Amino acid sequence: MCHESLVNSMEPGVNHRLDVLESSYTIMVDEFDELVDRYGSDVIKLTTGQPSIPPPRQIRVTIADKLVKEDMKLYKYPPGFGLPELREAIAEDLNRLGGPKINSDEVVVVAGGQHAMFVAFSSIMENGDEIIITDPCYFGYPSLIRYLGGKIRRVPTLVEEGFKLDIEAIKSAIRKGSTKAIVVADPDNPTGRVLTREEARALAELAVDYKLWLIVDEAYMTLVYEGEKSWPFKYAPDNTIGLYTFSKDPGIPGWRLGYIYARKDLSRKMSLLSRETIYSPPSIAQYLVLEYLVNWNERRSFIEYSKNIYKKRRDAMLKSLKEYIENAVLSKPHGAMFIMADLSHYIKDKRIDSVRLAKILLDRVKVAAVPGSYFGESTIYSLRFSFPGEPVERIIEGVRRIGDLLNTLH
Amino acid sequence: MCHESLVNSMEPGVNHRLDVLESSYTIMVDEFDELVDRYGSDVIKLTTGQPSIPPPRQIRVTIADKLVKEDMKLYKYPPGFGLPELREAIAEDLNRLGGPKINSDEVVVVAGGQHAMFVAFSSIMENGDEIIITDPCYFGYPSLIRYLGGKIRRVPTLVEEGFKLDIEAIKSAIRKGSTKAIVVADPDNPTGRVLTREEARALAELAVDYKLWLIVDEAYMTLVYEGEKSWPFKYAPDNTIGLYTFSKDPGIPGWRLGYIYARKDLSRKMSLLSRETIYSPPSIAQYLVLEYLVNWNERRSFIEYSKNIYKKRRDAMLKSLKEYIENAVLSKPHGAMFIMADLSHYIKDKRIDSVRLAKILLDRVKVAAVPGSYFGESTIYSLRFSFPGEPVERIIEGVRRIGDLLNTLH
Repeated sequence: MCHESLVNSMEPGVNHRLDVLESSYTIMVDEFDELVDRYGSDVIKLTTGQPSIPPPRQIRVTIADKLVKEDMKLYKYPPGFGLPELREAIAEDLNRLGGPKINSDEVVVVAGGQHAMFVAFSSIMENGDEIIITDPCYFGYPSLIRYLGGKIRRVPTLVEEGFKLDIEAIKSAIRKGSTKAIVVADPDNPTGRVLTREEARALAELAVDYKLWLIVDEAYMTLVYEGEKSWPFKYAPDNTIGLYTFSKDPGIPGWRLGYIYARKDLSRKMSLLSRETIYSPPSIAQYLVLEYLVNWNERRSFIEYSKNIYKKRRDAMLKSLKEYIENAVLSKPHGAMFIMADLSHYIKDKRIDSVRLAKILLDRVKVAAVPGSYFGESTIYSLRFSFPGEPVERIIEGVRRIGDLLNTLH
Repeated sequence: MCHESLVNSMEPGVNHRLDVLESSYTIMVDEFDELVDRYGSDVIKLTTGQPSIPPPRQIRVTIADKLVKEDMKLYKYPPGFGLPELREAIAEDLNRLGGPKINSDEVVVVAGGQHAMFVAFSSIMENGDEIIITDPCYFGYPSLIRYLGGKIRRVPTLVEEGFKLDIEAIKSAIRKGSTKAIVVADPDNPTGRVLTREEARALAELAVDYKLWLIVDEAYMTLVYEGEKSWPFKYAPDNTIGLYTFSKDPGIPGWRLGYIYARKDLSRKMSLLSRETIYSPPSIAQYLVLEYLVNWNERRSFIEYSKNIYKKRRDAMLKSLKEYIENAVLSKPHGAMFIMADLSHYIKDKRIDSVRLAKILLDRVKVAAVPGSYFGESTIYSLRFSFPGEPVERIIEGVRRIGDLLNTLH
């Protein structure tokens, strides 16, 4: 309400939907990160959604070399729809990774995961459409849906059930004529859930049966520790929109590059919107990623190398969570970068929610984890712990400190 | 209508406003560029809006070095609102260039000029708002305004009058309660017009008097060949929104970086929207530009160096246009990269419009220039000639060939 009046008082006037963004979880996460930064560098950070491993050295050397030696080529406008050779390489890469066989004209190169979301959601949504998301889910979806005039329908997933998708609950949430899309991250942020083939197929069938879009956020597709990534697109190619970012692999979050894949007619529409929002995705990132993707052997070993490091950290975090915070309820994440732990046992009766807990932890034991409230209503007593950003010893130390504090909370 | 039915037939359905983008001038320019490319490298290209000079070598070397030597720093997410030191540097730079004195919290770092436009227009416009633009104007404005649900009011500027802004005509185009903003590029693309101080002040006064936003696209602010850039923001800081891109200077169009400056409360809103669309502007471009801006002496001499080269090319183009196409009507551009030449004398009676003429030129004499129709209704018999992209000899040769052809058209 306060923001509302602020907007209305701004002459000559601004778009009323900007209001939504003031209270977005993205901004709350930003503010929390800033708070963490103010505590200095000795804080053990279990917050980040970004990798700790930069792109392979040889690729960095190649690009660095081109920066100096080539004249305008590396600086000039790339084609608005992405370098054709990059779109080819992406289509081939997706197939090599076990994903669907698509054509390069079904690929829209965009400026990172958020841009992929913005373009995809903007392209399919009309004012008033309902979008089904899981609870918890990535903190970026709700504000975007609201900004675009949509309504949110949350379908809870439970930690006790490994955050398994409840297909029947999703089906019940569909309202004919109102529901436009189902949005699922796979592997999931913040839960680490990886869809089974049956779940992927069931989701795809729902989309087809009810004529919905199925948006699958596959940002962590190469970070599956057990089992295999499955691909909803294979079962519903006309209804599925895949989102990907190169932020996590090969580790260039700051460079802003990602892609969307979808049936050709929709891809074309999304390309036009991508162009309207940013003209073209950054060329330098396109050249780096192209170099990475075409060197398949190097790429495969980089994925294995990164996954091994992150998996060890995940295992250490799981073990220490069980050891030091024994009444935490959690489920082993089979993908992505996070463990979502329910700490209700320690804080619910004491009327401490996750936002307050996160601040207490930061203040008293110098450990940072993201409040579960930023991901959903079902996780207001949970914290999201990220494992790629700190070495094993500091992860164990961080969890130990949190355990000590939780056990002395009164 | 054809597009409309295509959209409506796409199941599960897409946003109806994407339609607008199918027929945008941006796409027409793309298609023309692709046509030009198919003619091969010996075409004399007088089409491009991008510079031909890459960033200073020393800066490229510094960044290349960091790419290899630093670990995650150059790759990780930058702050969503831009590197704080870059926002400071931008505020200082604007002031050093003779522009307004602003604070860093009035700067929104974005992913290039198109993104600046998208964020600024989206932030101020509501569905149904009227936006006043000049005719001709940059080809990117109309589709964006239409995509956002706005209505366009075009105010012609005439080549015979040096494309001088007609302040009275703009005033007459304002409709109370409907008009939301006036958009002007200064220096202008496609006409090369540079606003005088009096015009800048008069525009600012209109914005204040009628409670409008004044959007000033200053992409070419450092490319003023005669006279001085003036700054509408100085006269109406609460109403003016400045747009800038680093595409032209220091010459990194592919890297996508720019900024918006406006009063603090609006800047805050626009930052939120920028974050919602792309999460953060590319970090690598931010580091390069920061390095460039803080080295003021190097920056100043790079501007002078580039301007001298472009000015010589402009002069050669002007001279040869007068020599070889003597009945062209044109006005000397005092800024930016283009000469807009009215060729009515040669083609109007023959019912050849600029789109057809551009194709004839490409096909018969292998010279490329952009059809005036893409910029406005008043320039359908004009061509936009760009001078930075080719050396003097080829500019002269290109114009000579065009002149020869025009003189033999029947």
